[in-house]
Amino acid sequence: MKTNCCAFLFAYLAAMLTNSSIAVADDPLPSWNETAAKQSIVAFVEKVTQPGSPDFVPTDERVATFDNDGTLWSEQPYYFQLAFALDRVKAMAPDHPEWKTQQPFQGVLEGDLKAVMAGGKKSLIEIVATTHAGMTADEFEQIVTEWISTAKHPKTGRLYKEMVYQPMLELLAYLRANDFKTFIVSGGGIEFMRPWTEATYGIPPEQVVGSSIQTRYEVRDGKPVIVRLPEVDFIDDKEGKPIGIHSHIGRRPVFAAGNSDGDWAMLQYTTIARSPSFGLIVHHTDADREWAYDRESHIGQLDKALDDAEQKGWTIVDMKQDWKVIYPAK
Amino acid sequence: MKTNCCAFLFAYLAAMLTNSSIAVADDPLPSWNETAAKQSIVAFVEKVTQPGSPDFVPTDERVATFDNDGTLWSEQPYYFQLAFALDRVKAMAPDHPEWKTQQPFQGVLEGDLKAVMAGGKKSLIEIVATTHAGMTADEFEQIVTEWISTAKHPKTGRLYKEMVYQPMLELLAYLRANDFKTFIVSGGGIEFMRPWTEATYGIPPEQVVGSSIQTRYEVRDGKPVIVRLPEVDFIDDKEGKPIGIHSHIGRRPVFAAGNSDGDWAMLQYTTIARSPSFGLIVHHTDADREWAYDRESHIGQLDKALDDAEQKGWTIVDMKQDWKVIYPAK
Repeated sequence: MKTNCCAFLFAYLAAMLTNSSIAVADDPLPSWNETAAKQSIVAFVEKVTQPGSPDFVPTDERVATFDNDGTLWSEQPYYFQLAFALDRVKAMAPDHPEWKTQQPFQGVLEGDLKAVMAGGKKSLIEIVATTHAGMTADEFEQIVTEWISTAKHPKTGRLYKEMVYQPMLELLAYLRANDFKTFIVSGGGIEFMRPWTEATYGIPPEQVVGSSIQTRYEVRDGKPVIVRLPEVDFIDDKEGKPIGIHSHIGRRPVFAAGNSDGDWAMLQYTTIARSPSFGLIVHHTDADREWAYDRESHIGQLDKALDDAEQKGWTIVDMKQDWKVIYPAK
Repeated sequence: MKTNCCAFLFAYLAAMLTNSSIAVADDPLPSWNETAAKQSIVAFVEKVTQPGSPDFVPTDERVATFDNDGTLWSEQPYYFQLAFALDRVKAMAPDHPEWKTQQPFQGVLEGDLKAVMAGGKKSLIEIVATTHAGMTADEFEQIVTEWISTAKHPKTGRLYKEMVYQPMLELLAYLRANDFKTFIVSGGGIEFMRPWTEATYGIPPEQVVGSSIQTRYEVRDGKPVIVRLPEVDFIDDKEGKPIGIHSHIGRRPVFAAGNSDGDWAMLQYTTIARSPSFGLIVHHTDADREWAYDRESHIGQLDKALDDAEQKGWTIVDMKQDWKVIYPAK
């Protein structure tokens, strides 16, 4: 009896210990090549989690922030949220016969993006206001959930949500296994991301920071609802990112990852005059497996941050050299 | 050897099991009398955490929101944040000799609150702008931290942070032990609360929602800073509370606690047309141990919510009847 008891307890305890130390025993970043980028990430995590180390960071200060478009998932040939908006215009078109002859909607319906873009920022705002406002938050969540579960990227044929970067999923999990709290800090719409970030990235809605439109609280048909209004509330990009971090998180991160000049201020806020800290830039260098673009790109332009990375001590991840795979196996 | 091993493992495992089940074995709410309020709280938590129950709520949806002033700590004779602002005026006065003859500052310095109040809302805004803006977020955090560590309430002689409600501390811990995520959703300033809510309530900065002023990101002396501006950004009160919850948390709570009509909309948002859910109202009924006030109070007015509680199914906590103690033992 005693031996059985002991055997059971030992097995139980051993299983628990194994689970809790799995990140140490195995390679936590199996999709990363053994290059400098991976080594610098692992060295950072090990030093800030080592009790007694001069670089030790208490668990409640282990805040890691990640840009989304181009950092956690692809963003070409245009932001996936724009693909969502264009699909919404098409889905809503039967209720709007006037759109057949009215720009920018006509351009969307005819697949003539040049005509859409000819209207500049005003056209884009009109499309976003039409597709992102005028419904309740619950209704918008439902619309996003349906789209993200079914819409496919024209080039890869994958669902958009399957175009997340496997190495970055591993990095998120690795940081969380080391008691980091992971946040998204994106220029994308906060309510466009929240419906699917928990299942896709393991990041719950309350840890998503993004751009927002104004809302109004009211009761409709006896049910309290949040109504989405066609007015910008906050743009979480460039200098807006530190503001969004301060507002939502209330702590300076010790780890930040981005891929464009829109992340420059977040990287600066995270790493400058603060040690230890870690800045990471995903550099899109792989035209075969993903896309290759940086200084001249109209989406995710990476120019100033690329110039400054070495002097600022930011780690550049070269997708082609540093990642074994881009997307998760299907 | 085997027996020793077994004994050690058994002791180890037993200790762990004891720790993890302490909330079940012992009374999780020892400062609550055995009245209907406590029973309804426990019944709610047990039914939503019971796997297989029709009322079961998955852990990631267990969001509980708490007002702060009058719900987690006292708020008389005026909001403690106003006491902070008045103390700041006094501390800053040596650098502002002109305040000796300039309202509302003169009134503050002379302890003549009537003169201050004679200036109405404009005077209060001037005091808040002077004491809460014009510095960096880090500097303001330092100022708040110093004040909250030393300032004492004139009536009780306690530090303000020792005027938190022991029964509510137990309720927060009880909910967290049952995998609820606890948030503050207060009309008070978000940056006035964040420096001390983690140590006092176990609620980290990123789970604090409150009113805010506008900020600007810049680099000063080579260090990135958030500068606090004398302009209101968001008022987290009344209909603002559901908006603040939606913006910061992105989920509807299943549990909300407040004490005034300023919490009515949050209680409605949490409980109406949603089951299971729990609304709690702290009713200040204890003039001996704390304060007694409701419908006519200039602070924390509780009128409409008191009328509506029964019909809405909200649980009213009668401080005098339901709580064994008010504040933590010193």
